[in-house]
Parts: sequence; C-alpha cells; structure tokens
Amino acid sequence: MSSQTVVANKIEDVVRPTTIVESSRLSARLGTHVILAAETFQYTGSFKFRAAYSVASQVTQQLLITASSGNFGQALAYASSLLKKSSIIVMPDNSAKVKVDAVREYGGRVELIDTRVKSRAEHVRDLAERHPEAYVASAYDDALVIEGNASLGREVAAFEPTPDVVVAPVGGGGLSSGIISGIKKSGKNIELIGAEPLMGNDAARSLKAGRIIANETEPQTIADGARTLSLGKRNWEILRHSMREIVEVPEEKIAEAVRVLFGLANLKVEPTGALSVAAVMTKPEVFRDCRICCVISGGNVDPAVYSELIHRRAY
Amino acid sequence: MSSQTVVANKIEDVVRPTTIVESSRLSARLGTHVILAAETFQYTGSFKFRAAYSVASQVTQQLLITASSGNFGQALAYASSLLKKSSIIVMPDNSAKVKVDAVREYGGRVELIDTRVKSRAEHVRDLAERHPEAYVASAYDDALVIEGNASLGREVAAFEPTPDVVVAPVGGGGLSSGIISGIKKSGKNIELIGAEPLMGNDAARSLKAGRIIANETEPQTIADGARTLSLGKRNWEILRHSMREIVEVPEEKIAEAVRVLFGLANLKVEPTGALSVAAVMTKPEVFRDCRICCVISGGNVDPAVYSELIHRRAY
Repeated sequence: MSSQTVVANKIEDVVRPTTIVESSRLSARLGTHVILAAETFQYTGSFKFRAAYSVASQVTQQLLITASSGNFGQALAYASSLLKKSSIIVMPDNSAKVKVDAVREYGGRVELIDTRVKSRAEHVRDLAERHPEAYVASAYDDALVIEGNASLGREVAAFEPTPDVVVAPVGGGGLSSGIISGIKKSGKNIELIGAEPLMGNDAARSLKAGRIIANETEPQTIADGARTLSLGKRNWEILRHSMREIVEVPEEKIAEAVRVLFGLANLKVEPTGALSVAAVMTKPEVFRDCRICCVISGGNVDPAVYSELIHRRAY
Repeated sequence: MSSQTVVANKIEDVVRPTTIVESSRLSARLGTHVILAAETFQYTGSFKFRAAYSVASQVTQQLLITASSGNFGQALAYASSLLKKSSIIVMPDNSAKVKVDAVREYGGRVELIDTRVKSRAEHVRDLAERHPEAYVASAYDDALVIEGNASLGREVAAFEPTPDVVVAPVGGGGLSSGIISGIKKSGKNIELIGAEPLMGNDAARSLKAGRIIANETEPQTIADGARTLSLGKRNWEILRHSMREIVEVPEEKIAEAVRVLFGLANLKVEPTGALSVAAVMTKPEVFRDCRICCVISGGNVDPAVYSELIHRRAY
C-alpha cells in the first residue's frame, strides 16, 4: 500500500462545536445552575468523532481497524471516509441492525463475529496479522484519542462565564482524560468530576486504591458506552492526579436522567450520555452552589430501548 | 394598575439563536441537502417564545391573557415572568398535567375551564371584561407576533451558504409569515414553502382559492400545533403574496418524520416540529437539488405520545 501523505486539518476546523443547551426547568429540578455541552449533534452523534478523527488523520496508515459495537466504530468509519482511508469495524454478530447499518452508511467495512467462538480482541489480533499495514485503534487508551477529546475541554474552558465544575461520563477514561488535558492547556481552573455506573465502578475503586482496578466481567449497565473492564493506562496517568472524584450512579438514576433530559431539556440522549446529569441527581450535595457543565456524550440509542426508558414514569 | 415603563430589549438580544443541526444520513435519506433550524432548545422549547417576548415586551399592559393549551401559553408565561409582568393562561381542564405544570413553573396563572360548558374564546372574552387593563394576546394574528418570529427569518437568511428554500410548518400562519418578513428585510432571495397537515389543509386551500378558507371544525391531526381553524388575517396578507406553495402532509408521514429525526439526527421533536421534514418526504420532487432549511418549530411532546410514535416502526 502506498504511504501517501495525508494533510490533516486541525481538529477544531473539522469537528462540530459542542451544542450548548440550557434549561431553567432543568436547573430548578437539579437545584443548581447547569449548562449542558451536548455532543449528540457531533458528527456520528457522539463525542467519539473527535477522537476518531484525531487518530485517523494523524497516523500514516491507510487502513484502520477497531473492535466496537458502538459509537467509536461509527466515528472511526466516518472519519476514515472523510480522509479517504478505509476502515474495518469488528462487531458481535448479535449487534442491533441499526448500529451495523450506521457503520456501513458511514463507509466502514463491518466484520460480524460470533463472540462465543472467538473474542473481539482475538479477532482483532488475527485481523492485524492479516493486515500488517493497518493501524489498530483503541477507543480510549491512545495519546491521539486523548488529544482529540481535548478539543472538547478547550471548548468548555472558553464558555462564558467559566464553569466551576465539569461532569463527564467515565468508561475507559478517554473522554475525561481528554477534557482534563484540554482544560489544562487553556490555563483555566475548572474541576472535573466523573460519572460512572455503580455496577461497573472500577474507575471509582481505582481512584480510591491509587491503582487501576478492573471489573472481573463486562458490567451489564444500561450505559453501554461505559461497559469497559478498566481504565486505559494513558488515561489513568492523567486521571489519577487530576480527577477530583467519581460519583457512582445507580441504574435507576441513569434512566431517570434520560427522562429528565427528555422532559425538561428536549434532549434525546443515550443512557451513557445521561450519566453526568444522573451524577448530579445522585449526589446533589457535591454540586450545590456550583456552576456546572454536564457533558452529554452522545445520543445514539435504539428506539425500542429509548421508548421503554421514557415511558416508565413521569420525570 | 400602574402603567410603568418597560424597557424592552431587542428580540435578538433575548432569544436564543436557533440551533443548526446537520446530518449526512438525514440528507442521504431525504435525497437532498438539508439543514435543520431547531427551535427545540429555544426558551420554553419552541419558537413561540420569539413571538411571546415580542408581544409582552412591547405592549404597555402589565397583564397578559391568552388561551393556549400548548407552546404559546408556556412562552407567554415565561416572557411575562422575565419582564416582571403577569399572565393568565386559559387551558381546557383535560389538558395534560405536564403542560399545566410547565405553564405554572414558568410563572403563569392557569385557569382551567370545561370547554363543554363554555368555549375558550368565550372564557377569554369574560376574562378580558373582568380585566380591562389586560392585553389579550393572539398566538399568530398580531403584528407583534409576526415581528417576533421575523427574528428567525433573519437568522436563517444569515446562514452561510444561503439556503434556496425554507420549509416551515403552517397552522395560524404566525411562523411562516414572520419568517417571510425577516427574510425580506435581509434582502436575501429565499423561497418559503409551507408544511401543513393534510387533514387540516385550510391554508393550502386558501392559497389555491386566493382567499381565507376555514376548517369547519378543529382538525384532530397529531400535529397539535397546527390544529387551527384558519390563517390569521395579518398572516394571510403576507402569505398570499409570498408563500410559494404548501405541501399537504398525511398523518403517517408526520409520524415517520418524528422517527427519522430521532434516528438520523438525534433530535427530539414534537409532531408539529416534524412537519417540515415530513413535507420533504411527502413531495421529494419539489425539493430536488435544493439547499433546504427545515424549521423544526418545537420539541415539547408527551413521553407517552412520543414513545408510541418512535416505537411503531424502524425509520
């Protein structure tokens, strides 16, 4: 394969600025002043495009491979297409059809695998052997991912007035470590608080223990973007020093936050995207009298799952 | 009541700029290039705040009265509160609780009436007699309403690149006549096409007949923001000369557009807000090779109604 030069644009010139959403009723409901930084209208519907474009535009390889049944797969497929590169997205063969269709519409080649026979990691290793010319991309444990997500940190740091605290969901730590990096470069003094599902609270436990602790199995939280075994090493090195704390969010609060954002902010969010608001509802005392920016990480959610969530109860 | 002077801000200094949402998958699905101008994150969740603030800030009266079970009631309540004025919103006693709550949270006084005993219009007339000091506000047939909504027309005219066509829902004609006024003042050459429910197609029939034709009864379309008997007189005087055409949208297309906006643009819209996209799906030949701006008028919809709509079928 030829190694033609790719002229990469600056991330800020390519990504869409985050969408600022404010709602007086939401702030009243949460008992504090909240600004939402919604990445639901980012290319491919989540912040992952920032990371994916950063990776795809900066590596010299023309083929990108990743294992992702979710937002990173769609983001990498689209970023690769924009850069006239190719991508192979490895997905479990029981993935929702809408997700497989989305990756294909964004120009990605989908490889469906039976995870009972071979794990995703094994499959990616085999693929990498067959395609030594390819770059195998991690959704979080990669300096280029952190660099891409830092663009959101810079945007939030430029908000007027400056927020006191940013709240962001934590899975592998790619988003939170990126936001911290971006804020630091801006010179602003804004604290970051993580929001993690209680049933997959490895990051919260890691922060308390002072070392990476992994979940034994993939936690089956409804916040499927946070179904990670552990933080990435590169992410941990940033978070261990700079993350103020992590709020552990029960499943029911995640569902409630999806409903609250639907009802009081007109925002369609996926469960992972509701984690930050759910954290404020879970531990309101942490956020009292603060000007908070809640990062809404993405909006891609199956209609059946979503209608079940918003239908359950009033907000 | 004292007639103290109110210092009104310019509309543009108060309203939130419309939220521009683009989606490559949505454009591909519609077979044309579409930009969405979403008013779902406007104050009170719909464009009606533009009109309500224009009215409440420019009349000298300290009390505003309107009959509205929907977005105009919430908008007038909130605009009045911001201006330290009072409002009475007349609503049918079978209105959804979330709507009544919303008006109250925005600071409006709600009067619930039994419409089987007395019509809303009669009740408003009685109220006006009891409160001769009040201004009775129409949601569309008012020069100040048109002026308020013109702010959206100016915003759309400033989009780069300039759209060829703007598509907007038509009920009483307040939004479409306002957009036309705003575009005209900008000096840009952008056509406006209306989107009206087929089952309440009085505006389409009026445009063909060259005079206002009214529905005999309130059409029971799911686009409840367009359940008007006829265009307003002031709106008609603008639309008769400047509205290119009106696409009559079947109910099923409105529901489909709600699903498409959910699935391909991550946008939560109320059925009336989906009318513009539904019009493009209903008559694609009208919009071929155009750069289209679809106005999404609002996002306030009951969770039960919404979950039923998005659950019905894939997009």
